[in-house]
Amino acid sequence: MAGKMNEAFIAGREVIEQGEVATYIPELGKANKNDLGICIKTLDGKVFTEGDYQKRFTIQSISKVISLSAAIQICGYDKVFSKVGMEPSGESFNSLVELDLRKNLPFNPMINSGALTTASLLVPYMTFEDMLDYTKKVCMDEDITMNDEVYRSEMKNSSRNRAIAYLLESKGIIENGVDRSLMLYTKMCSMSVTAESLANFALLLANDGVSPVDNKRLIDSRNVQVLKTIMLTCGMYDGSGEFAVKVGLPSKSGVGGGLMSVCDKEAGIGIYGPSLDGKGNSIAGCKILEVLSNKMDLHLFSRTKMDTE
Amino acid sequence: MAGKMNEAFIAGREVIEQGEVATYIPELGKANKNDLGICIKTLDGKVFTEGDYQKRFTIQSISKVISLSAAIQICGYDKVFSKVGMEPSGESFNSLVELDLRKNLPFNPMINSGALTTASLLVPYMTFEDMLDYTKKVCMDEDITMNDEVYRSEMKNSSRNRAIAYLLESKGIIENGVDRSLMLYTKMCSMSVTAESLANFALLLANDGVSPVDNKRLIDSRNVQVLKTIMLTCGMYDGSGEFAVKVGLPSKSGVGGGLMSVCDKEAGIGIYGPSLDGKGNSIAGCKILEVLSNKMDLHLFSRTKMDTE
Amino acid sequence: MAGKMNEAFIAGREVIEQGEVATYIPELGKANKNDLGICIKTLDGKVFTEGDYQKRFTIQSISKVISLSAAIQICGYDKVFSKVGMEPSGESFNSLVELDLRKNLPFNPMINSGALTTASLLVPYMTFEDMLDYTKKVCMDEDITMNDEVYRSEMKNSSRNRAIAYLLESKGIIENGVDRSLMLYTKMCSMSVTAESLANFALLLANDGVSPVDNKRLIDSRNVQVLKTIMLTCGMYDGSGEFAVKVGLPSKSGVGGGLMSVCDKEAGIGIYGPSLDGKGNSIAGCKILEVLSNKMDLHLFSRTKMDTE
Amino acid sequence: MAGKMNEAFIAGREVIEQGEVATYIPELGKANKNDLGICIKTLDGKVFTEGDYQKRFTIQSISKVISLSAAIQICGYDKVFSKVGMEPSGESFNSLVELDLRKNLPFNPMINSGALTTASLLVPYMTFEDMLDYTKKVCMDEDITMNDEVYRSEMKNSSRNRAIAYLLESKGIIENGVDRSLMLYTKMCSMSVTAESLANFALLLANDGVSPVDNKRLIDSRNVQVLKTIMLTCGMYDGSGEFAVKVGLPSKSGVGGGLMSVCDKEAGIGIYGPSLDGKGNSIAGCKILEVLSNKMDLHLFSRTKMDTE
Repeated sequence: MAGKMNEAFIAGREVIEQGEVATYIPELGKANKNDLGICIKTLDGKVFTEGDYQKRFTIQSISKVISLSAAIQICGYDKVFSKVGMEPSGESFNSLVELDLRKNLPFNPMINSGALTTASLLVPYMTFEDMLDYTKKVCMDEDITMNDEVYRSEMKNSSRNRAIAYLLESKGIIENGVDRSLMLYTKMCSMSVTAESLANFALLLANDGVSPVDNKRLIDSRNVQVLKTIMLTCGMYDGSGEFAVKVGLPSKSGVGGGLMSVCDKEAGIGIYGPSLDGKGNSIAGCKILEVLSNKMDLHLFSRTKMDTE
Repeated sequence: MAGKMNEAFIAGREVIEQGEVATYIPELGKANKNDLGICIKTLDGKVFTEGDYQKRFTIQSISKVISLSAAIQICGYDKVFSKVGMEPSGESFNSLVELDLRKNLPFNPMINSGALTTASLLVPYMTFEDMLDYTKKVCMDEDITMNDEVYRSEMKNSSRNRAIAYLLESKGIIENGVDRSLMLYTKMCSMSVTAESLANFALLLANDGVSPVDNKRLIDSRNVQVLKTIMLTCGMYDGSGEFAVKVGLPSKSGVGGGLMSVCDKEAGIGIYGPSLDGKGNSIAGCKILEVLSNKMDLHLFSRTKMDTE
Repeated sequence: MAGKMNEAFIAGREVIEQGEVATYIPELGKANKNDLGICIKTLDGKVFTEGDYQKRFTIQSISKVISLSAAIQICGYDKVFSKVGMEPSGESFNSLVELDLRKNLPFNPMINSGALTTASLLVPYMTFEDMLDYTKKVCMDEDITMNDEVYRSEMKNSSRNRAIAYLLESKGIIENGVDRSLMLYTKMCSMSVTAESLANFALLLANDGVSPVDNKRLIDSRNVQVLKTIMLTCGMYDGSGEFAVKVGLPSKSGVGGGLMSVCDKEAGIGIYGPSLDGKGNSIAGCKILEVLSNKMDLHLFSRTKMDTE
Repeated sequence: MAGKMNEAFIAGREVIEQGEVATYIPELGKANKNDLGICIKTLDGKVFTEGDYQKRFTIQSISKVISLSAAIQICGYDKVFSKVGMEPSGESFNSLVELDLRKNLPFNPMINSGALTTASLLVPYMTFEDMLDYTKKVCMDEDITMNDEVYRSEMKNSSRNRAIAYLLESKGIIENGVDRSLMLYTKMCSMSVTAESLANFALLLANDGVSPVDNKRLIDSRNVQVLKTIMLTCGMYDGSGEFAVKVGLPSKSGVGGGLMSVCDKEAGIGIYGPSLDGKGNSIAGCKILEVLSNKMDLHLFSRTKMDTE
């Protein structure tokens, strides 16, 4: 497997040039475009790493999976999905149109409107510190902190998210205050993780929510199923459908350059590569996963199983 | 398994009353709302049937999977997906808005605009008779014919599909004539199948495109992977995301009441139940699959495997 | 003329029942649905009044004309119309869709997005007290005050306007702070006027911006022309086109029940009737104007002139 | 007046370079971009002409006014406006989005969807020859014929209009056959007129529908009022609002380069200038009218009257 991973990594490095670091938030623009790191952990205990897999970056949209997990756990599946849908939107992550035209729920929890709704549901129950602890646990990474510069930079550039949140409030979907919901959401996005943290979280999902370290269940089995399905259909912004065809792994990306992928019942993959494609996904990360999926038959509808030899 | 299937069948029958037979085409309105049939075939040779599983009905949108299969085979993956996307649309099956606003490709081949495009690609290579033969083969059903009453009824009520097709032509997506494309598309929709035909086709897909009867490959492995992924993300109209969460099986429905589901590497399921829910999916069929998926752990992200004992 | 006006007034009263008092802001819901008043003042000094023409109500959207007038005067025509368009939108007054889809300017200054932009332009130059003074002047009404209950009620229900304002800020259209812009806008909407105040303002516009009392010019001639044209094409929400056909007078309505109409070079009309039609216009007011326009040939493309005998 | 007209003409000529001849229909692309002609006729019998005012070109969208006139005359105001609205759309002339989203009527008779509806209403009553006769009469021009090359060229490029028409049929708005409606509509667009023909038609509208030649009434007074109002609010595609502010004359343009303007109770103006601005209006024509309107106080809300000395 090391050979194939190395091959994929090289293929990923080659496309970095075609992407761009996110600049819509100044602080994100400071990332080093050429950074690239990967970490794969398998359920049978193998670990493969390469490049900047221990470099910290902000988790951004990948936190949407963590918030959704906590929200279902705390408020229940029915409550959560009475406020946010499960349909892929075909829209970019920050669309207002779909929200206003339909005059009902956010399409799904993986776009900003949906994640703001999830955050709003958590507000009465969880402080950001609680959520940080939860994140440390599911990522098995005690060193996660909030990046204050990114947080402040995002809050200064939050007009569009505020617009979305107030629209949600006007429709009765956000109930616990726009400011508190937006603050929790933005802090969640500003947590600093590594490719390894993401691999750990992905591995937890691959293992049905049971920690591979101590065999304790951290997330209910049914909720893990929901998370993986929604990652598969909605996790890669408006490129989710094509990614599902080409890679076929439940995944979630963030504009900080993070990307996590779940090889169900097999392994967790975390990648850091801040050069993004036009849809906001790590361009090298997507390439690496496409090559890995093809070479190692990782696609969920592939003929054979993952070969970890 | 027979006990669980029976249980699911009963649960399905109970919700028939909450749905409605399609009426937007007069001929479809003649269906018997209370009809319900199911056929499950497993790769290890078991067959389970119940109710009206041999009753014929028109295949409608399920033909979109067959046309896509033929189009990829004949024109190639790259050509097909230069004309139609792979993204779930979150829109109803016959939306014009998404198509016009974006001024580019149909979202995916499972909505009308995408399927009209697929049909248009096939026009230079395949007559309807060719497509009928292809359908008989993949459904392992020699008795499939075109229902002429339904075909004529659909052509009389085809204004919206014509609008979509002319819009596609104006954008240079449909190149081989609106009339010929629409005619091929509508004839494909008017083919008469049974729940068993659909189970056979689903079984073929579950078996990676290799006929379980004679072990001959009918569809390329990679194409089968594409078909199953697109069915999973886009197969159930604008309820695809929720269906993926709740059932977790690549499926395709038609407004004629048909529904096919693939239990990958395990089994094929065909259902006939013409009472439809608000999104155009067989209401009893969806219920049956939900119950079966829960009771038998069929969800693609379920912990365990299908239990066919 | 008194006879015709009386006839129109009766026709107006008859349709009150078919409308509804605005309820989206609780404070507005307290209006007496059956109130109806009218005031007409002609340039040759005649005054006709009937009903509750001295009853105070909040000016609401009619303030958009006053803000636009001040903004053009202070910031200049070019600056104002670099931030807001002049096109009728065919959309309801509080649409976000048109704004987000086009990703450019608000359609026109008579819808909320446009008026929030106008308010934002005024923020650096005018306090609300300044604007109140300006309003008193153009309405020749020293008794106008801000209705504090309505103001607070609107601010409590301002989520949608906040969403619009933040969206505008995210596009760089609102530059002077959402809070300050929204506050000025909402205070302007909460000013208490009478049908007579509105008739005075309409008369000022009919007289090319020159006060008929002391012959002093209050608004530049060219600006008056702009205001009247925009009132004609955009003044009656998404019923502006039909109103222009049927009545043919530059007019502006507010959800508080106010309605002002300009008979160019002839007269000003102010109406108060809080029962609204489906588009947010005073239902009795529209009826009165339609009857008056027909009976007295007030339509700007009518064959003959106004007969004030 | 001749001096001012000359000045305006020169100003118009100067902006020709900034526009482009329409090319979406090949035959229209053959026009000579530098052609420019104007004809003004006043009710007191004065005639001013300059440049290519006798050159023939296809009337295109200006025929929408003629069709609307005939449709109201024949089918009645109520019938026509039960099938098409009166609201400016803020959309480009060939938008499908507004039509599909709202699922009701075309916005107004000056955009393609509305004019196809008008044509459809005329189909049972009027052949194209009848409409040609009607056009000759209202334009006082016996030499108008259909340009067969343009007609064929348009029919070959009619996919988008067909899409619109079938969408209208699917909504029950077009009832008399898409083909017949589209054919009548396209033939109407292909009629060859001159700037003088358009000036004659505009003069007829300025004179309340009464022929200034023989004093016979050709169009009912009320219908003329409707036509002029709709031209004012909707006549210049999605630039109608700005044109109303800047020029303030009921006008209608066509992509063939024609432009007609009504100085109510004063004069009719016809212009030919095939170089178009981004919205499809004659760029020189708009400039000429803007200069004329300013210099001669033609704006409907200008302080003074037209000075024809």
